[in-house]
Amino acid sequence: MADAVEPTGPSKSALKKAEKQAKMAAERAAKAAKQAALPVQTKKADNIIGITVSKAEDFPQWYQEVVLKAQMIEYYNEISGFYILRPAAMYIWSAIRKWFQERIELLGVEETSFPMFLSQTSFEKEKDHVEGFAPELAWVTKAGDKPLDVPVAVRPTSEAVMYPYYSKWIRTHRDLPFRLNQWNSVVRWEAKQTTPFLRAREFLWQEGHTAHLTEELAGKEVLQILEYYAGIFEQLLAVPVVRGRKTENEKFAGGYYTTTVEGYIPANGRGIQGATSHCLGQNFSKMFDIKVEDPVTKGKHINVWQNSWGLSTRVIGVMVMVHGDDKGLVLPPRIAKVQAVIIPVGITKSTTPEERANLEKKVAEIKETLSKSGVRVETDWREGYTPAWKFNDWELKGVPLRIEFGPKDAAKDVVSWARRDTGEKGTTAIPEIATAVPELLETIQKDMYDRADKCFREHRLQLTNWDEVIPALDAKNVVLIPHCLNGACEDRIKELTTGTPELSADGQTKAPTMGMKSLCIPFEQPEGIKVGETECLSPECSRKAEQWCMFGRSY
Amino acid sequence: MADAVEPTGPSKSALKKAEKQAKMAAERAAKAAKQAALPVQTKKADNIIGITVSKAEDFPQWYQEVVLKAQMIEYYNEISGFYILRPAAMYIWSAIRKWFQERIELLGVEETSFPMFLSQTSFEKEKDHVEGFAPELAWVTKAGDKPLDVPVAVRPTSEAVMYPYYSKWIRTHRDLPFRLNQWNSVVRWEAKQTTPFLRAREFLWQEGHTAHLTEELAGKEVLQILEYYAGIFEQLLAVPVVRGRKTENEKFAGGYYTTTVEGYIPANGRGIQGATSHCLGQNFSKMFDIKVEDPVTKGKHINVWQNSWGLSTRVIGVMVMVHGDDKGLVLPPRIAKVQAVIIPVGITKSTTPEERANLEKKVAEIKETLSKSGVRVETDWREGYTPAWKFNDWELKGVPLRIEFGPKDAAKDVVSWARRDTGEKGTTAIPEIATAVPELLETIQKDMYDRADKCFREHRLQLTNWDEVIPALDAKNVVLIPHCLNGACEDRIKELTTGTPELSADGQTKAPTMGMKSLCIPFEQPEGIKVGETECLSPECSRKAEQWCMFGRSY
Repeated sequence: MADAVEPTGPSKSALKKAEKQAKMAAERAAKAAKQAALPVQTKKADNIIGITVSKAEDFPQWYQEVVLKAQMIEYYNEISGFYILRPAAMYIWSAIRKWFQERIELLGVEETSFPMFLSQTSFEKEKDHVEGFAPELAWVTKAGDKPLDVPVAVRPTSEAVMYPYYSKWIRTHRDLPFRLNQWNSVVRWEAKQTTPFLRAREFLWQEGHTAHLTEELAGKEVLQILEYYAGIFEQLLAVPVVRGRKTENEKFAGGYYTTTVEGYIPANGRGIQGATSHCLGQNFSKMFDIKVEDPVTKGKHINVWQNSWGLSTRVIGVMVMVHGDDKGLVLPPRIAKVQAVIIPVGITKSTTPEERANLEKKVAEIKETLSKSGVRVETDWREGYTPAWKFNDWELKGVPLRIEFGPKDAAKDVVSWARRDTGEKGTTAIPEIATAVPELLETIQKDMYDRADKCFREHRLQLTNWDEVIPALDAKNVVLIPHCLNGACEDRIKELTTGTPELSADGQTKAPTMGMKSLCIPFEQPEGIKVGETECLSPECSRKAEQWCMFGRSY
Repeated sequence: MADAVEPTGPSKSALKKAEKQAKMAAERAAKAAKQAALPVQTKKADNIIGITVSKAEDFPQWYQEVVLKAQMIEYYNEISGFYILRPAAMYIWSAIRKWFQERIELLGVEETSFPMFLSQTSFEKEKDHVEGFAPELAWVTKAGDKPLDVPVAVRPTSEAVMYPYYSKWIRTHRDLPFRLNQWNSVVRWEAKQTTPFLRAREFLWQEGHTAHLTEELAGKEVLQILEYYAGIFEQLLAVPVVRGRKTENEKFAGGYYTTTVEGYIPANGRGIQGATSHCLGQNFSKMFDIKVEDPVTKGKHINVWQNSWGLSTRVIGVMVMVHGDDKGLVLPPRIAKVQAVIIPVGITKSTTPEERANLEKKVAEIKETLSKSGVRVETDWREGYTPAWKFNDWELKGVPLRIEFGPKDAAKDVVSWARRDTGEKGTTAIPEIATAVPELLETIQKDMYDRADKCFREHRLQLTNWDEVIPALDAKNVVLIPHCLNGACEDRIKELTTGTPELSADGQTKAPTMGMKSLCIPFEQPEGIKVGETECLSPECSRKAEQWCMFGRSY
């Protein structure tokens, strides 16, 4: 599978510092929250449990605080580069898993589970993989206190684990299409700076590995899967993506071609690879001797056409980065475990037990009505916390809709609500909530997508003047430029757009600005390129442009 | 978690031989099947694709052939002791996962994902674990070509990985009950003989880890989970189990008490641990400093009460062993991916295209009717195979119901069917299949359970005479005996029931017969023990019996 975790560029030290600060802030906040749990001290905690920096001002620290404080992630202190996925993250991953699994089952993809280890000998069969993955392999060299005769590595991906068996199992063309998928975790012991979800030394993913009789059939599946990946981003996570093909430089090593969905992080203007669906061509089937008798020209044997495709927990990080704000996480309703939270308000010292009992009864009715309408709803009756503290707490956790209900609302037979995404407030008559709340949640889902889509479109600049490229990147855009699709030209473009290290005001050397790399060749090509006429935009390139290629600083 | 994979006893060489034979047989069969795939040679393959030995005569080889030929398992040749779980196995595991996941979600258990590695330093905190698991740990000592500063081990279970964070996350009694579960794989690099499903160096399981305020609350959950485990065996896999508590000797090291569901393998009369639900007491919470303020006597802090519980893919192996027969796998309908297969019959060289088209139409209608009734049904229109070959093939794979349909059936407006479990044949009028077939599948499910339950009951002998013990074991029974529950006595009973190696007819040393060990103290206690009066059945024990304890040769 393609490297699901792409380089983050030269801001290592900044990230490291941010990570440390985030940890310290988290520890302070945890301590404060522990105190806040005691009824007498709730007020004090109000300002501390939230995010301590602004997304605009210090994006790396903001991100680390959000994933920690919204309880998606815990740092695994014992071994660096590993993270614990907490229920708030696993709920989303399970929702994605269910959505995708249903669809691939209909395609006829079956589930499998291969061992997590790869022996040194079998790994060496695949030259391209050895080169690509060798520096990141975790090697088991002993069991108990006995050294292993042949060391084994934890899989970084499973081509070399699985394909020897494809050769055994695929016996006739009637076994095709042959499609297996597994949900597992893989290990890539990166030396680079790790980031929760985006780059971890172990991550959860699914990896599909299929075989087909013809290039056409394989190609059809590649696009079908890519469309499902796009669906996960667009329909579940409310994150827009650009579908396209990777350049030769960026494609899966050893494969034939790679298709991809590419996302965009507005806060820093970087592109980010979302998920990839590869056609491996016949390269692997030749290496692993996977062939069948040609049903047309009997007697002749042909190597099968293979695909592999993977989507990882990275998608959760992209969602957090795109939608989160200074109050914390913002969840799209479709993947929120709690879509609406009811917070009773207006209870004071002068509230009588009868009044309270009455309120409790009405809140229970509201909750039941919403549950029956399919809304995932919780009520927050926690004692010893002010409504304001609770508002902050649920905002931090990203719950899409807050419903407030107190004696004043009861008197008017309404609920008051506040949208997490926009902060917009309103009231809805109780007899209408059964239909209005589910509709409102779908509106939130749609609005979140539309806003993110508008933002991505506005920051995808179609340029035909090289001088505008670096200013566009500095203004947090990705760019679409006419390009020759030559690998060397692509490498040179990266160099040309990399800034030189500077001395900052305090005398420290500032890291150079990141160069741009090709993100994809979008399937949807704007007009304007005349084949054989239009020139490649690189100032040093004398080739003609082949297509519009999307470039950007990237993860 | 308790050792989910129990010792198989002294029949190593026999198993090794059987494994080798199974592999060779499988290779022969694969070769034959490959030839059989060519239309001209189908007849020849009829006798070869099936199981080559009888379950009664050579149980180990029979088992290996069944799991291989029914395409549940593939041996992972690259590293011994590892197995590939193929779709036929993963479908069952997914069905179990779904069933269990739904239930624990309702209990409030949330999903999590902890890293697969454990650092050497954190592991050493838990003394009992170190002793128990150290010999089986797979150690990662280098990443790429660089040695790690601190080696890390692949988790054999996750107590030591998770509990440091429980200490951090559980802050007040309001955080209780605190319940997390993860579905993953663990590695125990056993030196012992491995067997597909029952004992593998890597296996899939779920591990639940929960914390409670009181012993009573923890204890209630232990039994609730155990009941779900029993449900997986009884309701899904049609396998009877005995619920009970493990003796001190057999309980989870470091825990407080262990409850278990114990199964029985009729073919060799051995007991087998099905799944375990442990109360860890406060032992781990003291080691890992997991405590909350006592809500009753404010100010005082109490350590939480913890449970852990796990169920692994071993359950699939138990199901295969209990239900399989000389034709191969026999699947209970509720976990069968294909519950009924329609095989068109009576098509000869003289069948006209019109007749065939008519048959195809009717078969399609039957299939649609059954699908709409919720039956998972397939039609086998494969060309070039005789109906007899197809019958064998689907029998090998364990499909619960075969439906035959040909011109003769069409004339009578019936389908003919054959039950996989009993071989019973019958016909059903087509207008009735929508209700009759689902009912028949439920009847098969119930009958499979009832037969297995009757068999287990008949082979659970309640004995009060020591002299009857070894003959009972030799006659493939497990035994219920009055026992003092003393660990040393239990050890001695194992020795007393272990046979001495004998010289067999051909001059080879035969392995000694396996001694019996305690399987559990059943919750359902027969009458007959007078506390303080009844003596422990062991001839060398002078203590009084405490309870009836189930002993047996075991996996």
